[in-house]
Amino acid sequence: MSWTISAEQIPDLARGAAVLGTGGGGDPYIGALLATQALREHGDVTVVSLDEVPENAVVLTVAMMGAPTVMVEKLPSLDEVTAPVHALGTYLGRPVTHIACAEVGGVNSTIPIAAAAALGLPLLDADGMGRAFPELQMVLPTLYGVTASPLAFSDEKGNIGVLQTVDNSWTERIARVACVEMGCSIMISGFPMSGLQAREALVPGSLSQCVEIGRTITTARDDKADPVDRTVRLLGGRELFAGKVVDVQRATTTGFARGRARIESADASVTLSFQNEHLIAESDGTVLATTPDLIMVLDHDSGEPITTEALRYGQRVRVISAPSDERWHSAEALAMVGPGYFGYDLPAHRFDGTVDAVAAASLEGAA
Amino acid sequence: MSWTISAEQIPDLARGAAVLGTGGGGDPYIGALLATQALREHGDVTVVSLDEVPENAVVLTVAMMGAPTVMVEKLPSLDEVTAPVHALGTYLGRPVTHIACAEVGGVNSTIPIAAAAALGLPLLDADGMGRAFPELQMVLPTLYGVTASPLAFSDEKGNIGVLQTVDNSWTERIARVACVEMGCSIMISGFPMSGLQAREALVPGSLSQCVEIGRTITTARDDKADPVDRTVRLLGGRELFAGKVVDVQRATTTGFARGRARIESADASVTLSFQNEHLIAESDGTVLATTPDLIMVLDHDSGEPITTEALRYGQRVRVISAPSDERWHSAEALAMVGPGYFGYDLPAHRFDGTVDAVAAASLEGAA
Repeated sequence: MSWTISAEQIPDLARGAAVLGTGGGGDPYIGALLATQALREHGDVTVVSLDEVPENAVVLTVAMMGAPTVMVEKLPSLDEVTAPVHALGTYLGRPVTHIACAEVGGVNSTIPIAAAAALGLPLLDADGMGRAFPELQMVLPTLYGVTASPLAFSDEKGNIGVLQTVDNSWTERIARVACVEMGCSIMISGFPMSGLQAREALVPGSLSQCVEIGRTITTARDDKADPVDRTVRLLGGRELFAGKVVDVQRATTTGFARGRARIESADASVTLSFQNEHLIAESDGTVLATTPDLIMVLDHDSGEPITTEALRYGQRVRVISAPSDERWHSAEALAMVGPGYFGYDLPAHRFDGTVDAVAAASLEGAA
Repeated sequence: MSWTISAEQIPDLARGAAVLGTGGGGDPYIGALLATQALREHGDVTVVSLDEVPENAVVLTVAMMGAPTVMVEKLPSLDEVTAPVHALGTYLGRPVTHIACAEVGGVNSTIPIAAAAALGLPLLDADGMGRAFPELQMVLPTLYGVTASPLAFSDEKGNIGVLQTVDNSWTERIARVACVEMGCSIMISGFPMSGLQAREALVPGSLSQCVEIGRTITTARDDKADPVDRTVRLLGGRELFAGKVVDVQRATTTGFARGRARIESADASVTLSFQNEHLIAESDGTVLATTPDLIMVLDHDSGEPITTEALRYGQRVRVISAPSDERWHSAEALAMVGPGYFGYDLPAHRFDGTVDAVAAASLEGAA
């Protein structure tokens, strides 16, 4: 069922997207500004569910690539948002029919809305991850054989590039060094897909889910209820920890915001490790949850999602976890986004603390 | 007047090109292998002088970009040499009519021959510098407002990119980081020019000159004459120093072969500073010559040119210098390729040791 997104829904959508963004995917305030401006200038955007998209549609993803620490300081213009879509459309030599989100996040769910508005194109109610991940190839379409390239990138100065690579990891590698050179934040458009491919490879309903999460938080506040608790129930997840942020180490290196945050309560502490997104939650040597399941930090009382670049000493927060799209738990997917890929010698721990059977088996096999 | 280049001329041409390459532009042995193979497989190449090229010709440069220290270990295939031309031709949407050399050098004069042979296209008897320089924007066409982009790049794995940038320095910056990520050596094709632009902006007759220099060295050997002396006279230059290489510091950093070499005689020494190409020749505090004039190292007896990556302890060599194309001595050109650009606080010294008036004036103005 298609629906229409208007400026009024953007605050809820951006907030919900920042929850699923697991610390990455960009600041919801900036994302909301950008989408609101685009919808006011160009009118509402039609959001189409995956089962409605025509088989022969030409679908492109649009996203901001870079370190969130830099992205918060470089709000793109609408011309910048549409530039890579125009470049890629010209390169493909076919008219683009639909825009899709590569990931869910405060900025990366709203940039595609801005692009769709400015281009007058419908947007898919879907995304490539059901969460955010730091690298470009880390989308479910990669597992379905969809190529990231041709992929176009552009910056605020007017530089444009188009890549055609041998695999999606090479798209990431070349786009990443270009991104760093161009100032650590660029706009990208890629993963050209038919409607048929999009139906198979994307996560359905993500934009609707973002609005629902955002609205749940807003409504809970109005009801004087607990927004965090309602969010946890909506996501089918659990609360891992509540406490105060006492230490944040963060560096912007090789194009990513990498670091660790420690959160303490009266009698325990939790350490979160992140690369743009939260990857590992540990408490005194016990792993509570890891990528690919979702680890999120919300403000203790208001339930407002806190991105990794916004973590500050003294914040009172709650750490929650929720299941990812089940396809992320396949052996092939875990090789791409499991703890091992990010350099942690750990099997994947699900949101409920259980160890992922596939990853545990493969770690035993290797031992 | 057009002429035909065949495999028999390649050794002379590659040797002469390595002389004008001023230490960079790649190893002449590798360059000769590649061009010879292409000419044997695809037949001779027609070389067209600048005054014969049609005004509406579509001219592209073809070159290898990277650190010469890496280029000597990665001989490209013919498919790799033509890949960026095909990619750029498709991007332009117009048939390419002529190939040109971006610079003179052992590899970068022969790669365009290989490309022209494999593509069945004529080659211009010209190049963009009349020597070699380390960065992509350092060609006379930049001074005439010719844009480096659209520029295509490709590697041996099959990765391809096309850049469209706001100026030629940005083409260099993005292509350089991609080059480093792709293994420090890639093929590029760019600087799309009309015949009219090529006539104005390129250095005429460079390929003929390379053959003439190479033949002069070969003939001098046959005549038991001094090849270095004959080369110096042919170039209208002078010999700066003769001695033994006693120290070479060389590192491959940020995609370049950078370093210094010290050459000693019984009673004096010369230090050469290079970034792919020789930039400065100094003797005990006295500057003998600097970029943009040509500084070259030849084997003491055979006159064989020695590239910066091939400099070794114990080699008996002669250091010679010769004038560059006069256009490199304009104030605008010196800002792009003078000693100051490379971090040396020196005015440009011409091959005969005199200080460049323009650079001296601008240094005084700044003081």
